[in-house]
Amino acid sequence: MLRVGIVGGTGYTGAELLRILLRHPGVSLNVITSRGEAGQPVADLFPHLRGQVDLCFSEPDNAVLGDCDLVFFATPNGTAMQSVPDLLDRGVRVIDLAADFRLKDPALWERWYGIPHQCPDLLEEAVYGLPELNRESIRGARLIANPGCYPTAVTLGFLPLLAGGVVDPSWLIADAKSGVSGAGRKATTGLLMAEVGESFKAYSVTGHRHEPEITQNLAQFAGVRANLTFVPHLLPMIRGIEATLYARLTDPGVDLDRLYADRYADEHFIDLMPGGHPDTRSVRGANQCRIAVARPGSGDIVVVQSVIDNLVKGAAGQAVQNMNLMFGLQESMGLESVALLP
Amino acid sequence: MLRVGIVGGTGYTGAELLRILLRHPGVSLNVITSRGEAGQPVADLFPHLRGQVDLCFSEPDNAVLGDCDLVFFATPNGTAMQSVPDLLDRGVRVIDLAADFRLKDPALWERWYGIPHQCPDLLEEAVYGLPELNRESIRGARLIANPGCYPTAVTLGFLPLLAGGVVDPSWLIADAKSGVSGAGRKATTGLLMAEVGESFKAYSVTGHRHEPEITQNLAQFAGVRANLTFVPHLLPMIRGIEATLYARLTDPGVDLDRLYADRYADEHFIDLMPGGHPDTRSVRGANQCRIAVARPGSGDIVVVQSVIDNLVKGAAGQAVQNMNLMFGLQESMGLESVALLP
Amino acid sequence: MLRVGIVGGTGYTGAELLRILLRHPGVSLNVITSRGEAGQPVADLFPHLRGQVDLCFSEPDNAVLGDCDLVFFATPNGTAMQSVPDLLDRGVRVIDLAADFRLKDPALWERWYGIPHQCPDLLEEAVYGLPELNRESIRGARLIANPGCYPTAVTLGFLPLLAGGVVDPSWLIADAKSGVSGAGRKATTGLLMAEVGESFKAYSVTGHRHEPEITQNLAQFAGVRANLTFVPHLLPMIRGIEATLYARLTDPGVDLDRLYADRYADEHFIDLMPGGHPDTRSVRGANQCRIAVARPGSGDIVVVQSVIDNLVKGAAGQAVQNMNLMFGLQESMGLESVALLP
Amino acid sequence: MLRVGIVGGTGYTGAELLRILLRHPGVSLNVITSRGEAGQPVADLFPHLRGQVDLCFSEPDNAVLGDCDLVFFATPNGTAMQSVPDLLDRGVRVIDLAADFRLKDPALWERWYGIPHQCPDLLEEAVYGLPELNRESIRGARLIANPGCYPTAVTLGFLPLLAGGVVDPSWLIADAKSGVSGAGRKATTGLLMAEVGESFKAYSVTGHRHEPEITQNLAQFAGVRANLTFVPHLLPMIRGIEATLYARLTDPGVDLDRLYADRYADEHFIDLMPGGHPDTRSVRGANQCRIAVARPGSGDIVVVQSVIDNLVKGAAGQAVQNMNLMFGLQESMGLESVALLP
Repeated sequence: MLRVGIVGGTGYTGAELLRILLRHPGVSLNVITSRGEAGQPVADLFPHLRGQVDLCFSEPDNAVLGDCDLVFFATPNGTAMQSVPDLLDRGVRVIDLAADFRLKDPALWERWYGIPHQCPDLLEEAVYGLPELNRESIRGARLIANPGCYPTAVTLGFLPLLAGGVVDPSWLIADAKSGVSGAGRKATTGLLMAEVGESFKAYSVTGHRHEPEITQNLAQFAGVRANLTFVPHLLPMIRGIEATLYARLTDPGVDLDRLYADRYADEHFIDLMPGGHPDTRSVRGANQCRIAVARPGSGDIVVVQSVIDNLVKGAAGQAVQNMNLMFGLQESMGLESVALLP
Repeated sequence: MLRVGIVGGTGYTGAELLRILLRHPGVSLNVITSRGEAGQPVADLFPHLRGQVDLCFSEPDNAVLGDCDLVFFATPNGTAMQSVPDLLDRGVRVIDLAADFRLKDPALWERWYGIPHQCPDLLEEAVYGLPELNRESIRGARLIANPGCYPTAVTLGFLPLLAGGVVDPSWLIADAKSGVSGAGRKATTGLLMAEVGESFKAYSVTGHRHEPEITQNLAQFAGVRANLTFVPHLLPMIRGIEATLYARLTDPGVDLDRLYADRYADEHFIDLMPGGHPDTRSVRGANQCRIAVARPGSGDIVVVQSVIDNLVKGAAGQAVQNMNLMFGLQESMGLESVALLP
Repeated sequence: MLRVGIVGGTGYTGAELLRILLRHPGVSLNVITSRGEAGQPVADLFPHLRGQVDLCFSEPDNAVLGDCDLVFFATPNGTAMQSVPDLLDRGVRVIDLAADFRLKDPALWERWYGIPHQCPDLLEEAVYGLPELNRESIRGARLIANPGCYPTAVTLGFLPLLAGGVVDPSWLIADAKSGVSGAGRKATTGLLMAEVGESFKAYSVTGHRHEPEITQNLAQFAGVRANLTFVPHLLPMIRGIEATLYARLTDPGVDLDRLYADRYADEHFIDLMPGGHPDTRSVRGANQCRIAVARPGSGDIVVVQSVIDNLVKGAAGQAVQNMNLMFGLQESMGLESVALLP
Repeated sequence: MLRVGIVGGTGYTGAELLRILLRHPGVSLNVITSRGEAGQPVADLFPHLRGQVDLCFSEPDNAVLGDCDLVFFATPNGTAMQSVPDLLDRGVRVIDLAADFRLKDPALWERWYGIPHQCPDLLEEAVYGLPELNRESIRGARLIANPGCYPTAVTLGFLPLLAGGVVDPSWLIADAKSGVSGAGRKATTGLLMAEVGESFKAYSVTGHRHEPEITQNLAQFAGVRANLTFVPHLLPMIRGIEATLYARLTDPGVDLDRLYADRYADEHFIDLMPGGHPDTRSVRGANQCRIAVARPGSGDIVVVQSVIDNLVKGAAGQAVQNMNLMFGLQESMGLESVALLP
């Protein structure tokens, strides 16, 4: 049994990690920390875990965490980088679900996250934990930067097009929509149900932190720097991301369904729906990305729809998928639950 | 492996049965029928089951169903009673998730369901499948009447009070609220999102079919006929029932938390929350009933809160719990998934 | 034109007052204050008011407010009582939408609101602003205690029964449900959409501040102290209160629909729906209370359904109704907009 | 007083017309028809109109409708064209809220709507009722084709860019999202709350009827045929459309905020929010379109956000705006109500 710890377990990502890990047959959860809730039983904060977990939150302590084989950070951006070097030195492997190790360029990181990076020397080693992109590197990694939710949906949607060289990378549009759980469990007026229920809007139109992350991904398989316009929107619902992607075909003869089928033939967690309209509820609670690709009017514009559960394939599920790869477990272990619909 | 069939698999109860049975280690799903969708792959109707099930819906056929050890009926009221006698004769055991076998009195059944009962002789044999009430009878049953969703929440909430004889059975109030999935997957104007979203109301105030079912249950452990006022309400959400129950204490010295703890000490699927306010999301997708009991102002009115997921402990999960009991499996097999929150 | 001011205009009650007063033909809005947002244009905080109002929030200042004919307080509990005596001395009339002047007994107030009352001498003079109960007193009042949202729905629902002396006042049940806007625009985790969306629960089961307020109202027309069990619940929607009330008939021969029709014959803002099921959406945005009364199984339990929009008839609309009465305007002036459905 | 009639008043568009017309000071509602509900009081179908309207639905009858100055058709597509020629002959003016007269080319109409057009000779005369585009023609029109909801939001968003000639018309993207009321009040499984609540998806990705309508509009002010990719999505909420539009600048020096401000300077129902993120709730119930235009990273991609209430500026409100223009009333008469927020 893997001995794992969770740092920062009071947010939605932490709760979702708990939900998955508590049913994972190869894992024993040793410790879960929270500065704010130290001493409180986990099940008091999360009533759905009553009867499922006996742990209390504890103060974060690297000596204790050092006994784990793996530590997940489900902390705000800028927290993990304070402790990760020491944990790695103690021989612990780390998956950071925040953004600390996602961007390779520390200057870019500082620009978007507003503070200097504490351990830029680890950025090169950190592996971006998108298995469909970096599976082999993940297996050997000590440190995983778990992808952002939007970047997961957008990257998986664009990947076959750009890797196949069939679209113009110089203009790509990603119109992305997320349920409110993607914004976390912070007490802010802007996320009250009376503010975001029964309403819809775009946000961060002039720039969002996930844009450089996606652009970095796209460059990896496009070979050139892609030019992406990324506009996120807030949905009046809790879980789910849908990204509608637009690109211009440079190879009008390409068979798009075939292109996607070939690229994702062996991917257990990607489901292609030719001619379909994937909805977010079909992946609610499941570590799944469903994708459909279309070409309206047989023209040169490709439209890709990509849906995930932001807390599962967009966060905790993907983290467990990475864990499975890192420790030689079956990649889908603990991740087979069926989506909850309706 | 148990060979099971589902008759009428296109509603929400059928979909939920599928979700649970597809992960149940002791079950093989042999057949799923639907008159309307015969020939269609199940996964075309329910996109969350893509990759999970290869079956197509088939026409209901007792010869085929006769090869099963157990058949679930997830059909409209009045359907199961047409086929159940023949299936029992073929040695198949049956769990009916509709109302056909819930009421012991065929005249009462006809009054509430509007048609004569087709096999009143089976009503006596049929066991009301609420394990917390009838566990031993369920083990040996050929035919289970799976309880209604409201009756499950209300009966489990009142049971310790009435069995303990500490309240006046001559006036009991059940103010119950259900998510819209409880009304099924019928195309009716009244269930459109534009009609029921962002709104709330009571319905069937002068009488609802679940009232005689609950009253029958209460009589079983109250010893006398209870006098219940039952008012259902429709919630602007999908899953979940909350019932707030009111009764008058006749024994003001009773320790209510102790009473409930004693009665439910061995019940795996009942969670007591002394001093708490159970919310429906804490049981979303889980075969769980959470209950809290309170006595405002230390007066003689007891207030019980009882929550379930109407599709799980209120329908498909409870059906699987009954199946486990009937076939000597561990009662919780296949029912251990953690609720989905948020 | 009446010169009016609003103190504390950044909450939902304040926003709703603005929406109504900006279209009220007899009112000129002179000043709106907020300590936290002083200097900011009102329309920056509330985008729906862009183009409707040019005012900026200002620091509360009794010298400025003293120029008004009427000041509304849409402040947290305990705020209005700091300034009201001085404003009254300046000849300004006041409507407090918070709880400061609702309870006649200062000891009771302190028990429920946790701080000593600052001007207990005004409690006797303050008129409880429920026009259907106290219309004549409201006309002459200097100081109005605008009712709470739950108390409005519950009191109007019980009034004909208790005033008519046809039910037993010694046990009354009010099972009330409110949309989240009733909890205000505070940044708290418990009101995030990811916490309260798609879920339902009771709260404050052992005691809620609105219980003594309702009990005080009921005593006024019952003649004796009523014994009320009041349980509030939180609905996964924004606007609307539904209260389902239960009482025991002492006069089984009474014609309930007639009783209500007689009592409310001249009430413009009360709509009786015999045999109906009022839904909250039918009053969304409207200063209306819809009521239906039923007697399930012709027994001795009466069930009353009462719905309002918590921000209109439960707060701002009722305040404007009181204003109209106080200043001799037509009672419905500015309050005739039709509910928004769907 | 204008004497007006409504044909087909049982859908959401009809209900919204009623809500607006019942408060319009220049209108008397003479007749409202419905084949299915003839004889039933309007207020029985729409509880929010109780006490507001005494009319019953009647069978459609051109003799009766012929007494009106104006008839609104709030009918399914293909219905108005059956009666409009006769009504025009009787001297009645007509506003069709369906699609019958929106496309100028009858072959195109037949291709998208599946039936031959009944009165293609009227297509030329019919004026497309978007006042911001065709105000002068509307004033004199006998027959108005009231725009679709998506086309209103998208056309108003693109208009200044294309009329100004600052973007490349050969690729335009409109990623549009609508609340469920846009799909009407039909009893279909796909619009049940249990199906569309808490979920999001695109639909009609390969082609939607509103695309040719928008393209026809864009051609009017672009001078050339625009090449539009239009992808609609279904939001888990009731009212509101948000369209996020993407275009490529051909004139990188243009001042976008100035361009929009100049074009819409005199438009009462368009509100520009430079640097903002308009949300749909800010126009809920209001005849308003809010627009913001941005240029992420100062690049050559323009992003326009455009929000309306699909039932108001996207349907009934715009129809009344057209009526006001046709009959020489003040354009905003009856359309001044403030949006309902929260």
